[in-house]
Amino acid sequence: MSRQQRTWIKDLKAGTEIEESFVVRTSDVRQGRGGGSYLAATIGDRTGEVTALVWQNVERLREVFEPGNVVAVIGQVQRYNQQLQVVVRKAETVADDQVEHEDFVRSSAVDPELLWKTLNSLIEGVADANLKQLLFRIFSDPEVERLFKVAPAARSMHHAFRSGLLEHTVSVTTVAKNLASHYGADQDLVVAGALLHDLGKIWELELGPSIEYTDDGRLLGHLPMEVLYVEERIGELDKFPAETRRLLLHILLAHHGEFEYGSPRRPKTPEALLVHMVDNLDSKMAGMWEAITADGSDDEAWTPYSRILGRFVYRRRPGGGTED
Amino acid sequence: MSRQQRTWIKDLKAGTEIEESFVVRTSDVRQGRGGGSYLAATIGDRTGEVTALVWQNVERLREVFEPGNVVAVIGQVQRYNQQLQVVVRKAETVADDQVEHEDFVRSSAVDPELLWKTLNSLIEGVADANLKQLLFRIFSDPEVERLFKVAPAARSMHHAFRSGLLEHTVSVTTVAKNLASHYGADQDLVVAGALLHDLGKIWELELGPSIEYTDDGRLLGHLPMEVLYVEERIGELDKFPAETRRLLLHILLAHHGEFEYGSPRRPKTPEALLVHMVDNLDSKMAGMWEAITADGSDDEAWTPYSRILGRFVYRRRPGGGTED
Amino acid sequence: MSRQQRTWIKDLKAGTEIEESFVVRTSDVRQGRGGGSYLAATIGDRTGEVTALVWQNVERLREVFEPGNVVAVIGQVQRYNQQLQVVVRKAETVADDQVEHEDFVRSSAVDPELLWKTLNSLIEGVADANLKQLLFRIFSDPEVERLFKVAPAARSMHHAFRSGLLEHTVSVTTVAKNLASHYGADQDLVVAGALLHDLGKIWELELGPSIEYTDDGRLLGHLPMEVLYVEERIGELDKFPAETRRLLLHILLAHHGEFEYGSPRRPKTPEALLVHMVDNLDSKMAGMWEAITADGSDDEAWTPYSRILGRFVYRRRPGGGTED
Amino acid sequence: MSRQQRTWIKDLKAGTEIEESFVVRTSDVRQGRGGGSYLAATIGDRTGEVTALVWQNVERLREVFEPGNVVAVIGQVQRYNQQLQVVVRKAETVADDQVEHEDFVRSSAVDPELLWKTLNSLIEGVADANLKQLLFRIFSDPEVERLFKVAPAARSMHHAFRSGLLEHTVSVTTVAKNLASHYGADQDLVVAGALLHDLGKIWELELGPSIEYTDDGRLLGHLPMEVLYVEERIGELDKFPAETRRLLLHILLAHHGEFEYGSPRRPKTPEALLVHMVDNLDSKMAGMWEAITADGSDDEAWTPYSRILGRFVYRRRPGGGTED
Amino acid sequence: MSRQQRTWIKDLKAGTEIEESFVVRTSDVRQGRGGGSYLAATIGDRTGEVTALVWQNVERLREVFEPGNVVAVIGQVQRYNQQLQVVVRKAETVADDQVEHEDFVRSSAVDPELLWKTLNSLIEGVADANLKQLLFRIFSDPEVERLFKVAPAARSMHHAFRSGLLEHTVSVTTVAKNLASHYGADQDLVVAGALLHDLGKIWELELGPSIEYTDDGRLLGHLPMEVLYVEERIGELDKFPAETRRLLLHILLAHHGEFEYGSPRRPKTPEALLVHMVDNLDSKMAGMWEAITADGSDDEAWTPYSRILGRFVYRRRPGGGTED
Amino acid sequence: MSRQQRTWIKDLKAGTEIEESFVVRTSDVRQGRGGGSYLAATIGDRTGEVTALVWQNVERLREVFEPGNVVAVIGQVQRYNQQLQVVVRKAETVADDQVEHEDFVRSSAVDPELLWKTLNSLIEGVADANLKQLLFRIFSDPEVERLFKVAPAARSMHHAFRSGLLEHTVSVTTVAKNLASHYGADQDLVVAGALLHDLGKIWELELGPSIEYTDDGRLLGHLPMEVLYVEERIGELDKFPAETRRLLLHILLAHHGEFEYGSPRRPKTPEALLVHMVDNLDSKMAGMWEAITADGSDDEAWTPYSRILGRFVYRRRPGGGTED
Repeated sequence: MSRQQRTWIKDLKAGTEIEESFVVRTSDVRQGRGGGSYLAATIGDRTGEVTALVWQNVERLREVFEPGNVVAVIGQVQRYNQQLQVVVRKAETVADDQVEHEDFVRSSAVDPELLWKTLNSLIEGVADANLKQLLFRIFSDPEVERLFKVAPAARSMHHAFRSGLLEHTVSVTTVAKNLASHYGADQDLVVAGALLHDLGKIWELELGPSIEYTDDGRLLGHLPMEVLYVEERIGELDKFPAETRRLLLHILLAHHGEFEYGSPRRPKTPEALLVHMVDNLDSKMAGMWEAITADGSDDEAWTPYSRILGRFVYRRRPGGGTED
Repeated sequence: MSRQQRTWIKDLKAGTEIEESFVVRTSDVRQGRGGGSYLAATIGDRTGEVTALVWQNVERLREVFEPGNVVAVIGQVQRYNQQLQVVVRKAETVADDQVEHEDFVRSSAVDPELLWKTLNSLIEGVADANLKQLLFRIFSDPEVERLFKVAPAARSMHHAFRSGLLEHTVSVTTVAKNLASHYGADQDLVVAGALLHDLGKIWELELGPSIEYTDDGRLLGHLPMEVLYVEERIGELDKFPAETRRLLLHILLAHHGEFEYGSPRRPKTPEALLVHMVDNLDSKMAGMWEAITADGSDDEAWTPYSRILGRFVYRRRPGGGTED
Repeated sequence: MSRQQRTWIKDLKAGTEIEESFVVRTSDVRQGRGGGSYLAATIGDRTGEVTALVWQNVERLREVFEPGNVVAVIGQVQRYNQQLQVVVRKAETVADDQVEHEDFVRSSAVDPELLWKTLNSLIEGVADANLKQLLFRIFSDPEVERLFKVAPAARSMHHAFRSGLLEHTVSVTTVAKNLASHYGADQDLVVAGALLHDLGKIWELELGPSIEYTDDGRLLGHLPMEVLYVEERIGELDKFPAETRRLLLHILLAHHGEFEYGSPRRPKTPEALLVHMVDNLDSKMAGMWEAITADGSDDEAWTPYSRILGRFVYRRRPGGGTED
Repeated sequence: MSRQQRTWIKDLKAGTEIEESFVVRTSDVRQGRGGGSYLAATIGDRTGEVTALVWQNVERLREVFEPGNVVAVIGQVQRYNQQLQVVVRKAETVADDQVEHEDFVRSSAVDPELLWKTLNSLIEGVADANLKQLLFRIFSDPEVERLFKVAPAARSMHHAFRSGLLEHTVSVTTVAKNLASHYGADQDLVVAGALLHDLGKIWELELGPSIEYTDDGRLLGHLPMEVLYVEERIGELDKFPAETRRLLLHILLAHHGEFEYGSPRRPKTPEALLVHMVDNLDSKMAGMWEAITADGSDDEAWTPYSRILGRFVYRRRPGGGTED
Repeated sequence: MSRQQRTWIKDLKAGTEIEESFVVRTSDVRQGRGGGSYLAATIGDRTGEVTALVWQNVERLREVFEPGNVVAVIGQVQRYNQQLQVVVRKAETVADDQVEHEDFVRSSAVDPELLWKTLNSLIEGVADANLKQLLFRIFSDPEVERLFKVAPAARSMHHAFRSGLLEHTVSVTTVAKNLASHYGADQDLVVAGALLHDLGKIWELELGPSIEYTDDGRLLGHLPMEVLYVEERIGELDKFPAETRRLLLHILLAHHGEFEYGSPRRPKTPEALLVHMVDNLDSKMAGMWEAITADGSDDEAWTPYSRILGRFVYRRRPGGGTED
Repeated sequence: MSRQQRTWIKDLKAGTEIEESFVVRTSDVRQGRGGGSYLAATIGDRTGEVTALVWQNVERLREVFEPGNVVAVIGQVQRYNQQLQVVVRKAETVADDQVEHEDFVRSSAVDPELLWKTLNSLIEGVADANLKQLLFRIFSDPEVERLFKVAPAARSMHHAFRSGLLEHTVSVTTVAKNLASHYGADQDLVVAGALLHDLGKIWELELGPSIEYTDDGRLLGHLPMEVLYVEERIGELDKFPAETRRLLLHILLAHHGEFEYGSPRRPKTPEALLVHMVDNLDSKMAGMWEAITADGSDDEAWTPYSRILGRFVYRRRPGGGTED
């Protein structure tokens, strides 16, 4: 079942027959017609979600529609209450080794291979030999490359999608590098700190059909995990300067900015302050755009309440607004 | 007494005679030799401060050395306790109309005329005709130009010096304009919002020999004052679009970011969020550099406690550090 | 359909036929008998709410029962599960120009015309000629009068009903005027500040069948809007004293009391402190009484959890309590 | 030494001889002329403070000028550095039993006997027989009367002077009684709660020449102490209604309003909410007036920083201001 | 219906007939087959909860299944959707005087009589004669004994079950006594303070089939109630030392530790600090264990979100974990 | 100059000659007799502090009395203003290699060798072979032993003295081990976590004549440093279980309890919660006792304001108090 041939959720049409596999996000058995029960599930792929209804064999299919499962579904698309629904006639679990996970989670809009190239050219631009060697060592680790290319940057906030971490990291590093020049901070340290500031997230989050924390993610957290990893890599290098190590680890340890955001240190160098503030700015800007573009109902002037930003966002763009 | 011929505080030498005018910052009469009293004052100019001691005519000179006064002083520079002191023999108040205020307050390191040109070229670059017209109207107001070129951005935090507001505004606008492009925000709105975000400070702070709040500054604040001023200018324009007005005023009203920082609104558009965050970033970066370069004792690894940042700052720069 | 002839929600009786129009507050299509669906809506007028059930033509009537619509309904009132329900046989949307909005939102218990008279006599009592002239100019603006007579004071907190702003403003001004005398504050300033302290709410909130924020309300807020409006009116007056303007605008800018409540200033004069504290007191007292008298179940000793006050309220009144 | 014949601090004149007793507030031995030491003390009475200097017998007089002592002083009043000083020639400690404490602490501007009468007429006006009986029992306790007539309401905040508690209590009760009528709260409960809300302060603070906390004040606090006292008095009455007791004790337990101000309960009745808010309002208004009238330098537009209010206060009064 | 013969919820088996009484926790009438309605209730006893469905006589039985009622039920246990359900054929309210409340609320795992003995031996161990006499007087009050043996320690947090207060009190006192010895605090005071620190909860909470606050609990709170009670008992003793009273009452008044937790005092003695901190520690440890052992699904590595602790808890125990 | 022969500050007597070395804590040149200057310094050893005065050779001796220096002093002890002073006739800097640092900082009252033995027996008691092996490896590292035996636990809070870290660690581990048994937590994990929870402080603080942060201490912090160190030691062991590593590192990462105290994690296991709470309890109890016993003026009922605890502490002990 190659990606080219899939019928994506975003392309469903009322009145058509469908035969496709989707991930189950929620599932609920309800009281229905004639005292019998029916099953209402939310199924999705990386392009969206739809309600699926099962009227027969509820007892057996309940176990098929366990949240997290990928199910191959045969049924009909109907319009009901202004929304599409899939009425399911047949359904079977798809074996895990036949599932292409990337079909089922949202992805960065940018090609991860392109982002990876940009990341490598940022490393190329580092002048300090020690930092450059360290960055190459880390980002040429095959496990790091494999995980970093797909990892999300969060579970539910900004960049909470496949390759979101890479998109966020490249954006933060690009901006921070420019601002380092504007503000007279050390570019090499800033680039190294920015590239590594969320590295631990490749082990903190697990990307199945949905995004979940790992045990290590919950018990240790990405910040300590990346500090442990970077320290180990530094230990393998010859004569890595103690001062450079101290300044680099400080950027990682202080990148959450304030104690109350889980930062064991607060920024005490211009480079640490800059990486922290650009990280924050990039996350908030992404969060706001995600709120504005979410759910397609862009004819409403205001977004629904955004939990990330703690507010409603004004969606009307300059120039396009009414002139009342 | 032209600026070229002044003897600046930073150029004082122990053992020399001096005849120069300075502003009095603090003044204190103390018990001294033989039961008599002496006067110890701090006098300064825009390059620094020094202790002045008066052993004779204390009673009369006490009134001359009123804080805020500019006094013409004749005396000798001595070294005592590793610091220079001026032992004063004669002193007279300088009439206010003979004082060149700019000699006595710290100034931006950048020429304000250059900054003003940059500001005007930022206005030139605005594509939206309405915003461009508004900005020209505001910044060609002679009172605005006169005040904006000298106003500080704060009383004691970052950019608390002559032309500090102009330096801060040009820096914020330049950075915010670039980031607007990176993050897909509207450049014209961002530039207009950034240029005007602290405009009210020209009426909030008064730049005499020291920086003080005006009554309006304390009772109204710079944010409401600039909103009132911009609204009045908009009212003079023909058919300024209601939507543009609303989006621009929102940037000003939300630029402190959070309620607890005196912001009557929180940013609800990408443009308002960006101006707020760059304003914050520029202030913090400036505050950190000011902490690092303050007081010249740059052989200490750590700065004194910085009240602005609420922490000590690490002064040792990458590359220049010891490798322990 | 004049107001005198309406059948109000509060007067519905089980077993009667009904033919009346109501506003739709919520609407939901559910699975029902025989696999078909039915529609359950909440409909209301300014006296209360009731559940309406539609068993036929669900598909078509779903669009009639859009929340916010006013619908003319024919059906029967039934008692079910201790509550009244309306079983709808026919329903049609009422054209907006035939809807009398005041029938559908809760109203102040006091006649707005009476309140308006009290407000005007408060203006009459102002001794300071400049303040008196300003207040007359503002409150004789026909748009202000029209909006102020109906505006609510909030969307969901205290005084969240038609004419709630007027009721709140008259109460605050009356109390603040008396306390100004008790505490030696300037009565004229206090009366002017109290009358204008929430003026901006007439543009912040929109009173349709429900209460919603306007775009300006969300992006600018009532506090800045009233400051802009008052400043413009002051500008039209001859020689309005700068000191009076400063003190009056300060009351408006500081009336939320603390930064964290969106106040760009904190009260720095006795008059500003008094208006802020009486505003707060009046809102809290109103909120508590609304909690106590809400939902008619006054035989319970405790109210449901009040979101406004963040607590449960004890409803038993002194004298009427049991003596356990 | 009767009060009529005292020379008050506020009446001192430069160049006159003085023979009077004052309380010592601070005392400090400093290095002085010829290597010897001198003593600089602050001495005061209820009308103000002045610096006293002792040039001879410093060693012995150091013990006389212990802070808290009342000393009989012989010396000369001089003007120095724009302020009066007393140069002391002789000084002796005054025995505690000869000290009239009221000469040395600031006092309410209102006669305590008059305030006491007002308080009693407020009790007279209580209609509820049980509450009236309780109030009479409490306020006719001779110890309560003796202490209440002199107790301050605080150590350093508002009403921190002799009879300040009585002044504050009468003001709060008067205002709260009026507002109870305006807001439909129970007047008797409000009056009883307001009269008793700070009763515990008569045991919390000790009024010697200065105001200090008692051990019970620090370990138990005035709120629990008054609750214990009122409960004991209720226990002595016949058939005091349980509901009235509960509602009254609740007012006392909730009168600090929020947990963070040491309130074990938050107001859950209109009466408790009203007493809390009027208590707060009265304290803040008093604090602001005390800031404005303090230190006599009322030609300055702004007061010094007020620790109580956490801000500077604008001193210029409406009408009297400049019109710039 | 004695406890030995009951069929407990935890012992229900699918396919069996049942005839037993349970407490109703929630009740809901829903739309069901053929347009008719059915009733879905949650019924429980002290060992757990189960869903009960009523298909006939819904109208009449709705009143029987009022939450809080104890109902005698005849029906069949069925398995549905992986969970047991009771399909009810007959149901009747059980008269309140025939209900054994202890059958219906969760209980301490430890026998309250044993806990009571431990508590008494802790009193026995007090060396200070005054404190010992006071504790005996209090805990031999029959009302105190009766209530203390069954009272919960909270409504929904830690120890929210029958005899939870006793379990918590004995645990806190045991630990605090040991730590008093380790830290050199006064053991007798610590034991007395620990035994009495939550005494007021016997009047604050009411243990029916569920746990509810009393009116006094909400209006006065357990802390003031126990202080009032202890003070009254002290008053009955001969010559109870004032210093011991002050130190003991201080422990009670300060045992919530910080103002924001409703503590009118903060700990100012080692004994008060210790009782507060051990109270806190015991509650948190209990809360964590309750989270870990709740709901039996101990094969999940993480508990559901714990509202008490504000986090997810890791359930895997040392030694038993996988070694990935 | 062996420790036995020193004249300690606590043993100084007025009127005696002295010849001893002390550390300089503060130093200040002041105006003195005849217009000349004198030097006033605070000098100390581990038993206390005293003021030293230098009347001659001020210019030269100013450099000798640099804070941090250890100086050999010849002079006379005098009583002045109720306090001892040393009038210095001669003074010379002591070369750093001749200074016994332990003479000049306050020390634990318990012998560090005894504490070290207790610590080792706690390791002996660990049953889990992996944890035991890890602990032995760490605490038999000679650098760890050397530093741990002298390190303070803080710069100015609790246990801010030589061997304070060891005293605190042994106390926390002993208490936590007992409570692990009481609360059913895993003893081995608790003991290991408690022993290692502040290990990083041996590199965070530097114990010269005073206690200062190291650069690593400020930029990295003790928590990350100990995590890095423990992780490195675990890496050297054979087959250390991943689950044990995760649970142990979690205790270290969570031992500050809440984000706002610089904890990158919050406790999510009973063991982590217990170590955090006992750490907190031990620090607070120590801080309170240090406040009570500080400065010897134990005849005052209240301590001076304790910055650590944010309050005054009641010093009067049970039984020893007055009975007023």
